[in-house]
Amino acid sequence: MIQVAINGYGTIGKRVADAVRAQPDMEVVGVAKTRPNFEAETAVEKGYPLYAAIEDRIELFDDAGIELAGTVDELVAAADVVVDACPSGIGADNVEMYREHDTPALLQGGEDADAADVSFNARANFDETTGTDVARVVSCNTTGLSRLVAPLEEEYGIEKVRATLVRRGGDPAQTGRGPINDILPNPVSLPSHHGPDVNTIFPDLAIDTLGLKVPATLMHTHSINVELESTPDAAEVRDLLESQSRTFVIDEHMAIDGAGKLKEYAQDVGRPRADIWENCIWGESITMEGNDLYLFQAIHQESDVVPENVDAVRAILGESDAAESIETTNEALGMGI
Amino acid sequence: MIQVAINGYGTIGKRVADAVRAQPDMEVVGVAKTRPNFEAETAVEKGYPLYAAIEDRIELFDDAGIELAGTVDELVAAADVVVDACPSGIGADNVEMYREHDTPALLQGGEDADAADVSFNARANFDETTGTDVARVVSCNTTGLSRLVAPLEEEYGIEKVRATLVRRGGDPAQTGRGPINDILPNPVSLPSHHGPDVNTIFPDLAIDTLGLKVPATLMHTHSINVELESTPDAAEVRDLLESQSRTFVIDEHMAIDGAGKLKEYAQDVGRPRADIWENCIWGESITMEGNDLYLFQAIHQESDVVPENVDAVRAILGESDAAESIETTNEALGMGI
Amino acid sequence: MIQVAINGYGTIGKRVADAVRAQPDMEVVGVAKTRPNFEAETAVEKGYPLYAAIEDRIELFDDAGIELAGTVDELVAAADVVVDACPSGIGADNVEMYREHDTPALLQGGEDADAADVSFNARANFDETTGTDVARVVSCNTTGLSRLVAPLEEEYGIEKVRATLVRRGGDPAQTGRGPINDILPNPVSLPSHHGPDVNTIFPDLAIDTLGLKVPATLMHTHSINVELESTPDAAEVRDLLESQSRTFVIDEHMAIDGAGKLKEYAQDVGRPRADIWENCIWGESITMEGNDLYLFQAIHQESDVVPENVDAVRAILGESDAAESIETTNEALGMGI
Amino acid sequence: MIQVAINGYGTIGKRVADAVRAQPDMEVVGVAKTRPNFEAETAVEKGYPLYAAIEDRIELFDDAGIELAGTVDELVAAADVVVDACPSGIGADNVEMYREHDTPALLQGGEDADAADVSFNARANFDETTGTDVARVVSCNTTGLSRLVAPLEEEYGIEKVRATLVRRGGDPAQTGRGPINDILPNPVSLPSHHGPDVNTIFPDLAIDTLGLKVPATLMHTHSINVELESTPDAAEVRDLLESQSRTFVIDEHMAIDGAGKLKEYAQDVGRPRADIWENCIWGESITMEGNDLYLFQAIHQESDVVPENVDAVRAILGESDAAESIETTNEALGMGI
Ligand SMILES: NC(=O)c1ccc[n+]([C@@H]2O[C@H](COP(=O)([O-])OP(=O)(O)OC[C@H]3O[C@@H](n4cnc5c(N)ncnc54)[C@H](O)[C@@H]3O)[C@@H](O)[C@H]2O)c1
Ligand SMILES: NC(=O)c1ccc[n+]([C@@H]2O[C@H](COP(=O)([O-])OP(=O)(O)OC[C@H]3O[C@@H](n4cnc5c(N)ncnc54)[C@H](O)[C@@H]3O)[C@@H](O)[C@H]2O)c1
Ligand SMILES: NC(=O)c1ccc[n+]([C@@H]2O[C@H](COP(=O)([O-])OP(=O)(O)OC[C@H]3O[C@@H](n4cnc5c(N)ncnc54)[C@H](O)[C@@H]3O)[C@@H](O)[C@H]2O)c1
Ligand SMILES: NC(=O)c1ccc[n+]([C@@H]2O[C@H](COP(=O)([O-])OP(=O)(O)OC[C@H]3O[C@@H](n4cnc5c(N)ncnc54)[C@H](O)[C@@H]3O)[C@@H](O)[C@H]2O)c1
Repeated sequence: MIQVAINGYGTIGKRVADAVRAQPDMEVVGVAKTRPNFEAETAVEKGYPLYAAIEDRIELFDDAGIELAGTVDELVAAADVVVDACPSGIGADNVEMYREHDTPALLQGGEDADAADVSFNARANFDETTGTDVARVVSCNTTGLSRLVAPLEEEYGIEKVRATLVRRGGDPAQTGRGPINDILPNPVSLPSHHGPDVNTIFPDLAIDTLGLKVPATLMHTHSINVELESTPDAAEVRDLLESQSRTFVIDEHMAIDGAGKLKEYAQDVGRPRADIWENCIWGESITMEGNDLYLFQAIHQESDVVPENVDAVRAILGESDAAESIETTNEALGMGI
Repeated sequence: MIQVAINGYGTIGKRVADAVRAQPDMEVVGVAKTRPNFEAETAVEKGYPLYAAIEDRIELFDDAGIELAGTVDELVAAADVVVDACPSGIGADNVEMYREHDTPALLQGGEDADAADVSFNARANFDETTGTDVARVVSCNTTGLSRLVAPLEEEYGIEKVRATLVRRGGDPAQTGRGPINDILPNPVSLPSHHGPDVNTIFPDLAIDTLGLKVPATLMHTHSINVELESTPDAAEVRDLLESQSRTFVIDEHMAIDGAGKLKEYAQDVGRPRADIWENCIWGESITMEGNDLYLFQAIHQESDVVPENVDAVRAILGESDAAESIETTNEALGMGI
Repeated sequence: MIQVAINGYGTIGKRVADAVRAQPDMEVVGVAKTRPNFEAETAVEKGYPLYAAIEDRIELFDDAGIELAGTVDELVAAADVVVDACPSGIGADNVEMYREHDTPALLQGGEDADAADVSFNARANFDETTGTDVARVVSCNTTGLSRLVAPLEEEYGIEKVRATLVRRGGDPAQTGRGPINDILPNPVSLPSHHGPDVNTIFPDLAIDTLGLKVPATLMHTHSINVELESTPDAAEVRDLLESQSRTFVIDEHMAIDGAGKLKEYAQDVGRPRADIWENCIWGESITMEGNDLYLFQAIHQESDVVPENVDAVRAILGESDAAESIETTNEALGMGI
Repeated sequence: MIQVAINGYGTIGKRVADAVRAQPDMEVVGVAKTRPNFEAETAVEKGYPLYAAIEDRIELFDDAGIELAGTVDELVAAADVVVDACPSGIGADNVEMYREHDTPALLQGGEDADAADVSFNARANFDETTGTDVARVVSCNTTGLSRLVAPLEEEYGIEKVRATLVRRGGDPAQTGRGPINDILPNPVSLPSHHGPDVNTIFPDLAIDTLGLKVPATLMHTHSINVELESTPDAAEVRDLLESQSRTFVIDEHMAIDGAGKLKEYAQDVGRPRADIWENCIWGESITMEGNDLYLFQAIHQESDVVPENVDAVRAILGESDAAESIETTNEALGMGI
């Protein structure tokens, strides 16, 4: 069993922990956290050994009556691999500690690409991660774009991608984040950094992205244009996207108009935390105009990277090939909504 | 096994169906719906026999490839009791059908009190429902207020309740509802109808309520003042509220500041649909000033009435007493967060 | 003086009334309304003769103590031209009445293109309206796109426009409109109807549009891609756009990040109703990648069509040419922020 | 003419500047700002001499091509009185500078009461400020509550006030503030600090307040209960409130359901910045139950303190009595909507 440590038990970290535990070949050796809030309490209830990420704060856990298993250093030492899910920027700072312990590490998309040896997407470049020390699972948006680009590139060839990312302002529990009533070009300067991030996975892809931030918390929504090198009809493209294991093509009769109903559907079918790991593509939106493909997809920012982290664990340790890992992960989680 | 039909399989109906199925003494004999959307699909996947609520629409289900078990009339005939969870106003119209079939029926809080023989809250007036033909499980807000009033009244006596209900504008999937950026006195005329609704449960209670509507979807929040007949200290009141089976007193160390984190916590502990059946009372807010008690509570509008519906099934059939039913319901659902 | 009637005194109608009054060659002969709310009261205070749009409702105005000048029929008869600013769909129904009175009429963008003889944008096709009976001032979004397309087409030639319209869910006072917390592909089917609407102004333009709706009320925001036929640099394009009389290029030092600050700026400089008649284009966003131009623009849905309506009055009556009318309108209003 | 300096030219400061300029007995000697954004530009356009609040930043203004008149020290020296409208906390730090220059100063409600010699509300305690060095114009919420309390106390006597303040999350241009989709008890501990702040104006008043924060930007809304010492009927109370010069009782026929329509009305009647200086009380909501008065009022956080600042200038300099100052201010501004 692969011993996996999770450093940073927040939005991403807690989901990765549960997904790792669900795998037949992995075990959660422990999780590290900085503050004794409701998430810490839940970690303990779930039986995850809890480690203090910052020594000075050990006392706070004591005060809250939450038992600790040790410090993050001990956790990293005990692990075969560490998944770092700390807030943006802190992951890069932690790399030195991981290297000192010779523990392979996965960073998240909040870190700069050059903080890691390689950037990772299971569908697109699994093998490049094997044998590296530090890999970065790309961000929720880049993951969503990569899953779309990969089959289109393989099947039809891509001239250029132009994508407008209408991003949620904050996650549902991030009460300090706005805007309350605005649509913010973000970043204002174009093209946005999201395109270059996709290039860490597809170095030769022509892609320009534009980002905005709006007062919504549930999912990002991508307005996508792909100029293809050939001219399949829309039905063919839809078939192709339906055949992918991590995309969900929303059927017209479901009457799903946005992220609210998508999450409601995920709740209804019993998904843990109502997570939607798949790209959600509106079937009705898939359209070809000449060689211009258009579509809308919604991306659940809190969870689409979770199966990717699981695969990246196997990739960095060289424990599996892409197809086998993806299948194992999917089956263990119950992918396919 | 009590055969329970659910007519109206939406926000409330689908939750009641799952809660009924979880009970040791009940079975879902079928659910009725009007439209073949994602909820209809999920009903079928869950193995609930699906009945057409409106004959004209049978074809629509056929078109969507969703199999029907019959019409709502057949469903009501086959049931020991029917839980009506149709949109406001339709429940009252359905009463005639239920009476024709001699099937005892539960309505929801969207119906006027006089559409039913009695209004129901498990904690406060379970027995009054036994033997009636039609009972009404009071609304989410009235349920939340009743659970608070009952122990306070018993323990300290109540001079008067004054409550401001800051209500969510719509449920998360109700994309057509506003406001987007406003705080609406609603209703404008005072006191609001919520007080008289509480009086259907506590006829002699002095209570004045004020309602507002705001751009939030997760939970209602109540700003509560109760003038007590005695002057316990805040710690005592907190103990009392912690001892109730359907209230959750939020501890300070959990660092939960609103509905977003409450729902996140519910997700993390694995609650189905992240439902919170309990009144959520901020421990830190419980305060006594003279004989004035103040506190904040959040009410999950989509689910607090669910355990009440389950109890009301037993109450109307005379199958149990209050304490036993509440305990059975709580245990089957996993009440107590 | 041109005698202008305004039928429908709501968001658009009241602004057109004030803009007409500000013109040296026009007079408001009266405004028609259906309900005696605060807007009716203000119309009277401003000295606009108020006509009842619906006879049955005359009594309501009496009850509210608001004096009427007559019925809409009398108003249309007295006018040289009528600006119809009724809710979508009603304008088309009114055309018969306007034709009966032989009064030239302007409809708004909520009406279908074929309800009118021609669609109008001052910058792009002023002359085509002269001599028609019924012209349609295109919608806020189409107006915003047309103002951008016209100079780019003239100066550089356009291969294709691809635009994602991130639309506000409702106007600030429309409390019944959502969504509260969602990003809705709207319409879901692609390309959206906005492109064909632009083609009513530029019949030969290649344009594909995608629309979304978000929980914001202040302005629409457009994420724009224009494939040009030549390759100017970004600074040149910026100069071109700065030289237009109805675009406002937001300078970096102003630190304006969205619609909130734009409206605040409009308030600060004393714009009536904080209206922004101009397309607001973020200077920093104007970018060329090869022959792909990218930029963000915000469109004040409530007011960008107002100067266009004023010009359309002159156009339909053949009272002026485009350049002269635009200059008169701009000067009277104080265009140029 | 009283020479008034404004230190901190933001939301409050720029409004106070315009209000001061509108007075017959005052002049704006200059305004001080820290950053060369759109507000700085507008200050210059309006002809307010602009001073640098922080020396290190002078260069930034130069870069933006915005001319400065000097530093804040010079400004304070030149003024008869300074209105400090810096962000919370900075005002208190500035007091030393004002004392050094012997320039009487007004702080805003974001400062602690003990940063000033006295707290000020024109209607309630004008005279107490005369002759002090530093007075604090109480916050928007406290101003709104004080205006309500004063006439009720005088006319009927007050047993106790209980108020729930449903507060906007941020001002319209504050895009960094949340929550996006939540209702936050804020502060969680009760009663909130707003009650004691009202006691700086009415030391003997029994008042308990509860605060919440919601995703809205336009106005605060207060849900009010006042236990009176006598039992007037609702119509009498309404008359009393209508007779006050800084309250606006919203009539039923206006069909105003919230802050969106209130601000729209203010726009329509041509209020500068659509400001509403008055407490906006829903007439229909004014209700007596026994000796319990209930009502809803909306408070425009950005502007209700503006006339109070103007009055406080006269009060601290001993230039007028309350009645005369209020009348002058009201007339100059056009109070009474
Ligand atoms: N939330 C998203 O939508 C999302 C999506 C994809 C990727 N990401 C990326 O994932 C990473 C984590 O983001 P998140 O949203 O889970 O953040 P989060 O704030 O929800 O969780 C971070 C956790 O790390 C803990 N932490 C803080 N400092 C720490 C330290 N020094 N050592 C150990 N733990 C520490 C915090 O207590 C918290 O539990 C970021 O790089 C982010 O960019 C986030
Ligand atoms: N949503 C809440 O927050 C909430 C809380 C407490 C009580 N309630 C009450 O519960 C009742 C149901 O509300 P909801 O929110 O679940 O509504 P909903 O709209 O989510 O669900 C209603 C369901 O009834 C179906 N339906 C419509 N017409 C029907 C008919 N004629 N026959 C059978 N089914 C029909 C609809 O297809 C839908 O599935 C209402 O009385 C409401 O006031 C709602
Ligand atoms: N609001 C916008 O953002 C916007 C932008 C551009 C174009 N438009 C278009 O302008 C038109 C008007 O929209 P609006 O937003 O001003 O609507 P609105 O609802 O604000 O105003 C419509 C007015 O018409 C009145 N009215 C209703 N029925 C009437 C009738 N039969 N006769 C006369 N008056 C009647 C109403 O009382 C109201 O005052 C629509 O076609 C709309 O699509 C609106
Ligand atoms: N905005 C409201 O709703 C509101 C309502 C009532 C009272 N207040 C109070 O008014 C005060 C000002 O609030 P605001 O909303 O106007 O803030 P703001 O942020 O809009 O404006 C503050 C201004 O002060 C400037 N500034 C910052 N540091 C400065 C310094 N050291 N010296 C001089 N200027 C400096 C900023 O550039 C800005 O222009 C606070 O005490 C606040 O609590 C605000």
